[in-house]
Amino acid sequence: MRDFSQTKKLFHLPEGMVYLDGNSLGAMPISASRRVQHMMEHEWATQLIKGWNTANWYTQPNTVGDRLASLIGAAQGTIVMGDTLSIKVHQALAAALAINSDRHVILSDTGNFPTDLYIATGVMTMMGDRHSLKTPAPEAIEDHIDESVAALLLTQVDYRTGRMHNMERITRKAHEHGVITVWDLAHSAGAISVDLASANADFAVGCTYKYLNGGPGSPAFIYTAPKFTDTAPVALSGWMGHEKPFEFDLDFKPACGISRMRIGTPPVIALAALEASLDVWDMVNMEDVRAQSIQLTETFIREVEARCPELVLVSPRDSAMRGSQVSFAAENGYAIMQALIAHNVIGDFRKPNIIRFGFTPLYIDEGDVIKAASILQKIIDERLWDTPEFKAVKAVT
Amino acid sequence: MRDFSQTKKLFHLPEGMVYLDGNSLGAMPISASRRVQHMMEHEWATQLIKGWNTANWYTQPNTVGDRLASLIGAAQGTIVMGDTLSIKVHQALAAALAINSDRHVILSDTGNFPTDLYIATGVMTMMGDRHSLKTPAPEAIEDHIDESVAALLLTQVDYRTGRMHNMERITRKAHEHGVITVWDLAHSAGAISVDLASANADFAVGCTYKYLNGGPGSPAFIYTAPKFTDTAPVALSGWMGHEKPFEFDLDFKPACGISRMRIGTPPVIALAALEASLDVWDMVNMEDVRAQSIQLTETFIREVEARCPELVLVSPRDSAMRGSQVSFAAENGYAIMQALIAHNVIGDFRKPNIIRFGFTPLYIDEGDVIKAASILQKIIDERLWDTPEFKAVKAVT
Repeated sequence: MRDFSQTKKLFHLPEGMVYLDGNSLGAMPISASRRVQHMMEHEWATQLIKGWNTANWYTQPNTVGDRLASLIGAAQGTIVMGDTLSIKVHQALAAALAINSDRHVILSDTGNFPTDLYIATGVMTMMGDRHSLKTPAPEAIEDHIDESVAALLLTQVDYRTGRMHNMERITRKAHEHGVITVWDLAHSAGAISVDLASANADFAVGCTYKYLNGGPGSPAFIYTAPKFTDTAPVALSGWMGHEKPFEFDLDFKPACGISRMRIGTPPVIALAALEASLDVWDMVNMEDVRAQSIQLTETFIREVEARCPELVLVSPRDSAMRGSQVSFAAENGYAIMQALIAHNVIGDFRKPNIIRFGFTPLYIDEGDVIKAASILQKIIDERLWDTPEFKAVKAVT
Repeated sequence: MRDFSQTKKLFHLPEGMVYLDGNSLGAMPISASRRVQHMMEHEWATQLIKGWNTANWYTQPNTVGDRLASLIGAAQGTIVMGDTLSIKVHQALAAALAINSDRHVILSDTGNFPTDLYIATGVMTMMGDRHSLKTPAPEAIEDHIDESVAALLLTQVDYRTGRMHNMERITRKAHEHGVITVWDLAHSAGAISVDLASANADFAVGCTYKYLNGGPGSPAFIYTAPKFTDTAPVALSGWMGHEKPFEFDLDFKPACGISRMRIGTPPVIALAALEASLDVWDMVNMEDVRAQSIQLTETFIREVEARCPELVLVSPRDSAMRGSQVSFAAENGYAIMQALIAHNVIGDFRKPNIIRFGFTPLYIDEGDVIKAASILQKIIDERLWDTPEFKAVKAVT
């Protein structure tokens, strides 16, 4: 097992805080602010417009995508960065529906993150309400895969409970029925071992501000399987996806390769921060991170269940079925989480009664986990959550 | 007339360079890198997930939109930041077509920036090829406004020549025929006096990395007229446009107000840079900037025509018809521009033979303009452009 004390030193972590919310917003690599400052002062300020070439801003969405590829089992040239996850869901889903244009069902599940479902309804409306969106319970998803389904849109790891879909098995079944798959890796990339190539995933999308530590609102990514990279239909046909953007042709001709999934001018400043975070990822391998993540979540479950028997584990007990987070159902969960935050243990709350904790081995260790469990015990044992303040605060996270 | 020597001091400008490409990428306000560094080290690093509330990241797309509003004659609560211009064109155009759903013509012109036309074709494909895109010459646009037109999609200032559409007159005619207008302000915002409210514009979009100096790939904006802010149909229905994003409802209900045009998680780091640039804009008013811009462009035209009679002005001679840029047609224009750049006068080249110069009064003054004209003269008189190096380089800007 790798020693993660070395990577922990590379992050800025507020003194005394146990930060178990890296599944919402990752911590800042110390080098990120220097990297961004350098980009601004030595690229933007001095190279100005030339920076598109001399500082490689133009190719950066692709080169950063290639760096990310190794973390999620993708081939070089199959991932590009940009926009937000919502936009990337739109692109991938619209492409899938265009490929399977004779089918009219989008299959997702009730465990999907809402924006995926919202985007799906937007796509359906734009396409003239010819499709329907089915959302069975996550556990029943495989029963609904059949020849009526055009696209399967699933978030691999449930944002509330950490329950994990089996990407490989579900994709295989989808393909047996001619269904195109769109996998949302928001809670997978940097959290678990993902192998898009082995799983034969068709499209995948994700954000980089959670486990990947790219900073608030950092750019999203989109993956297309090699069989689609040169041919995927382009719904959001912006100039950066053109085969020759600087010819300024009046007609859109999509680029060959993953660049067709580029849309507008890339977010250069944000990409600099993301590059700093990928420098940290370059130092580890995902298998070690996953092994450490499992160890941390197992410890947390064991410690919390021993200390707080009234909390009910809602994450899968089997680590093979669980992402890098642990959630408990708790009466008064909202107030308990507010009290935890006041005691400098940062997790979050999801309705109706879930307290949620993310585990990020790059900067969270066994000591943090035990400390968090012990503070949670104290808060429950001493009813420290039972104050008007903690019960009344409005949750926005 | 305001003295702009004070604002010029607020920008980082490479020693000896005359930067006439602020219409492509604005110069960096010196405070921008400090501002971003502060955001990263004192907001992201220390406040972590709490920053969405405590550092106002969540409301920032709206508050920054409100700051921008005063520069383009928009009411508070009608502009929101995010994404790229291409995405914002998609949103605005899709909304316009949904409002005018019984019409099937999108009217634009051949002077529009290509990404607007590309996005339009993407929108048409998604909507089932029920629309057609008409692109007459810019000068003929008003002749094509009739009851068949659903949406008029125009870039106000031509990116090649600086020719300006009369937004108020064209919008009036559009409304007489029941046409919804979408104005692209990429080369207008921060460049000329825009009054969206007086012009009765329906939708407007723009980027912030040109005249507004937000940095490479800084966030775009979208404006909806007050009559549409609570009702505009939402095509890209991401979670941040939901009326209650943190309820995590499975069904999309658009927010009241301009927030419905938000899509995904906002680009917080990039917005910090943009805020620094808006601090500079707070020090001036747009009428002074426009008056100074006209003075600079008039000087440049006069100087260049006197010094380089073989160059042909392709921008409108009447400053009232011209944005904040000046373009000349030049035989060997590409090589001339390369030679200029080698002599530290930065403009750019647009096919087939246009050399283009942008004028940004916040950091470009009369002395810069005369220096640029004089170096241009030297390059032409002494045929300094006539080298294999300058003739062969590939243009990517």
